[in-house]
Amino acid sequence: MKGLEKFNELVAAFSALPTIGKKSALRLAYHVCIKDPLLGSKLAYHIEESIRMIKKCTQCGALSENELCEVCSNIERNHNIICIVQDSKDVLVLEDSRSYDGLYFVLDDTSEENIIKLRSMIEHNKTTEIFFAFTQGLNSDAIVFFIEEKLKDLNLSFSQIAQGIPSGVSLENVDFVSLHKAISHRTKLD
Amino acid sequence: MKGLEKFNELVAAFSALPTIGKKSALRLAYHVCIKDPLLGSKLAYHIEESIRMIKKCTQCGALSENELCEVCSNIERNHNIICIVQDSKDVLVLEDSRSYDGLYFVLDDTSEENIIKLRSMIEHNKTTEIFFAFTQGLNSDAIVFFIEEKLKDLNLSFSQIAQGIPSGVSLENVDFVSLHKAISHRTKLD
Repeated sequence: MKGLEKFNELVAAFSALPTIGKKSALRLAYHVCIKDPLLGSKLAYHIEESIRMIKKCTQCGALSENELCEVCSNIERNHNIICIVQDSKDVLVLEDSRSYDGLYFVLDDTSEENIIKLRSMIEHNKTTEIFFAFTQGLNSDAIVFFIEEKLKDLNLSFSQIAQGIPSGVSLENVDFVSLHKAISHRTKLD
Repeated sequence: MKGLEKFNELVAAFSALPTIGKKSALRLAYHVCIKDPLLGSKLAYHIEESIRMIKKCTQCGALSENELCEVCSNIERNHNIICIVQDSKDVLVLEDSRSYDGLYFVLDDTSEENIIKLRSMIEHNKTTEIFFAFTQGLNSDAIVFFIEEKLKDLNLSFSQIAQGIPSGVSLENVDFVSLHKAISHRTKLD
């Protein structure tokens, strides 16, 4: 609306966020500005604080407030296994699930520098297993193969996150690639 | 995740917004903090600026950066008609539609003070028509009736936003109340 330049800029900033459309942006802008300015101030403060404080762990690349992240600096984690993910967001998801107690390595690109970092992390932690937890896609198999090749002299075992049908999803709603893999990787019942 | 208190607080602030769930909050926090910190800083700045600058128009109650909003201070608007809405957000929506050129009045409650403000606005602008644009609900008819009673000595004409079926929505998807009103308010073809 004309004459509300500040407000229009706020709406524009909200709608630049992923998955936020014009109508949602207007609703959110109105909420933080008029309905709940206290929440608005809090949100603005936490955005600035997070940008200032959150960096990448120097060893594994996960999000951290310190040089080393909580996982890397925790001596009780299982140092025998490193889980390789493509995005530091995946570490948050896996940690939230509380189903994994090893280390992580964020491989956001396959540059030589990243491979050297991974090798030195493996040697430093005397790791014996590399566990790939990639989002399945056309190039994830290629990256797995590439990393295996690069590390084959280290005498590691390699594993990959299980693929199949998610729980609670009926077969008709599963795409054909997942269905195909779920059938060919079927597990034996004891 | 443990050890990421700043980030967790940011996720919590995002998920306190309306219609933003835990997963969306995580995605948004990650985006403003890691993927696009420039957008993050911009968003934080615009939230603070908007909270500081946006107030209510002293005449009509719509959002404004000045004492009087753009609509009230625009002498080219039609002062004969005042559109009464329940929320200042509705003014933004109606202005965006560019289908109305009169004045507005935000009636967020039916307090005596608000009625006095509305009366003085009507007298000051020599308004002749009051146009209700309420979200239809159980109490909107009661509020319309209440306002009509309060203003009956001013010799005004009253109108209300047309109800019916929205364009592009098939009949099977229209609720019964709307369908009933759309039938009883059917318009004559010329």
